[in-house]
Amino acid sequence: MKLTILGCYAATPRTFTNPSAQVLDINNHKFLIDCGEGTQVELRRNKVKFSRIQHIFISHLHGDHCFGLVGLISTFRLLNRDTDLHIYGPKGIKEIITLQLKLSNSWTNYLLIFHELDSKEPQLLYEDDKVTVETIPLKHRIYTNGFLFREKPGPRKLLINEISRYKIDVSLYNSVKQGKDVVSEDGKLIPNHWVTAPPDPPKSYAYCSDTVYDEGIIEQLKDVSVLYHESTFLEEHLELAFPTKHSTAKQAAAIAKGANAGRLILGHFSTRYGDLNLFKTEAETVYSNVALADDGKIFNL
Amino acid sequence: MKLTILGCYAATPRTFTNPSAQVLDINNHKFLIDCGEGTQVELRRNKVKFSRIQHIFISHLHGDHCFGLVGLISTFRLLNRDTDLHIYGPKGIKEIITLQLKLSNSWTNYLLIFHELDSKEPQLLYEDDKVTVETIPLKHRIYTNGFLFREKPGPRKLLINEISRYKIDVSLYNSVKQGKDVVSEDGKLIPNHWVTAPPDPPKSYAYCSDTVYDEGIIEQLKDVSVLYHESTFLEEHLELAFPTKHSTAKQAAAIAKGANAGRLILGHFSTRYGDLNLFKTEAETVYSNVALADDGKIFNL
Repeated sequence: MKLTILGCYAATPRTFTNPSAQVLDINNHKFLIDCGEGTQVELRRNKVKFSRIQHIFISHLHGDHCFGLVGLISTFRLLNRDTDLHIYGPKGIKEIITLQLKLSNSWTNYLLIFHELDSKEPQLLYEDDKVTVETIPLKHRIYTNGFLFREKPGPRKLLINEISRYKIDVSLYNSVKQGKDVVSEDGKLIPNHWVTAPPDPPKSYAYCSDTVYDEGIIEQLKDVSVLYHESTFLEEHLELAFPTKHSTAKQAAAIAKGANAGRLILGHFSTRYGDLNLFKTEAETVYSNVALADDGKIFNL
Repeated sequence: MKLTILGCYAATPRTFTNPSAQVLDINNHKFLIDCGEGTQVELRRNKVKFSRIQHIFISHLHGDHCFGLVGLISTFRLLNRDTDLHIYGPKGIKEIITLQLKLSNSWTNYLLIFHELDSKEPQLLYEDDKVTVETIPLKHRIYTNGFLFREKPGPRKLLINEISRYKIDVSLYNSVKQGKDVVSEDGKLIPNHWVTAPPDPPKSYAYCSDTVYDEGIIEQLKDVSVLYHESTFLEEHLELAFPTKHSTAKQAAAIAKGANAGRLILGHFSTRYGDLNLFKTEAETVYSNVALADDGKIFNL
């Protein structure tokens, strides 16, 4: 899994900061998560191939998370895209996009498939042989979801030395990787665990933005490998966090700790702060493995 | 008049080129003309004070001319704007904006006044004591208007030496500037033209983008001081210009020449071209006073 942060600031795009958008690479898929104004330019700047994006997940309909979507869809059209595009987002997103395409007489020449969300329970949105994506219902001023990406367990790993020692035919390797016992060329039954090691533990990534501090999400996030949790504010502005339904760095860390996350990435910073290291320091009072998002930063998870 | 080009490229925003947007300064008014994606960032980059923008003119509903509008409106709200904002644009623009404000539950705390256009005849959109703005109906793939800004004639200029020679009381200066004859302190009738010179000829600016080559607009543009005319293509791609309802540099120059424009600014360049000087060279085969728009370029008209 590789995570590219395109934008990690709250509210309004500025000359040197971008609103929310990020690309998660899993096994050749590029999942775009949120799409603030200017995301298509940040995709270019970060050399993300447009054609590789087939699934876009929009957390909620505040502008800093979705105003770049119609432009990206239009640019795909101008570039003669022909592969389908799936958009997952709150009910209403289809009307917003199609109204603009209709009034500009610029229908896409590729298939645009909307998956509108209104459930308050976690929902499985996407599944293939390698990965699942589910919603994380969040509490914000309007209907909002986070997204939880989970790799499926991979095949067992062949122990090359052992497998040649036991003379196992190459044609059987695939079933060995699936965990099956096999018979060697000289007729012996070889238990699978003699010639394989367990697969790497599957990784998972949770995107939680925007949300008020909500311990209700901890159970769903249990043992997540990497948690991106919004921290719009520092504790010194705690009195702003609750009414605007945002979190502080310390609160984000408390969620990471409660969920036993492997790592916490903080983002969605209010543009009022000059020194973002204060977010890291504050979060580290509660939980140790903290990183700061930054526009253009890549995390190899 | 001062014209700041925020973006002058066609179709899709890129790392180093912006879609259509420009600010025309006339007598302390800042008129924003078109608002492609990223315009709010370009306004910041060019240090245009947001609060001074009270009138936004949208030529048509193709994304490269309007996808930045909802973000700008939202940012005005976040900055606690309290002055009215007037938006002039094609019918449908109100629905596009209000749908997004409604679904994000982010109504503006200032007054947003839409002036929706559907006339195919020139219309007076705005008038104050210094300036008028009227539409220039254009021919494009969808309903489109250019905009013609005209200064009103200013007051006559006082000839300071003459006015003191004839001993005219300071309290009369305003009526002298209005062209009235006056009586001097020693009782003589002084004809106005003895103590004043005519005002500077009023300037005018026409924005014509996007449009196919259309001689029908020449009469309305007659003697315009500065004409910004789209030139998406060079003549070598003339076969693309007509079906997409765009113009070439040479065609833009023919309009400038026909209208006896004081100056031609070319813009709305297709991003397929590496060397924009080819546009200038091509236009200069027809008309001599040609300039190229460029993102961030300022023209003192």
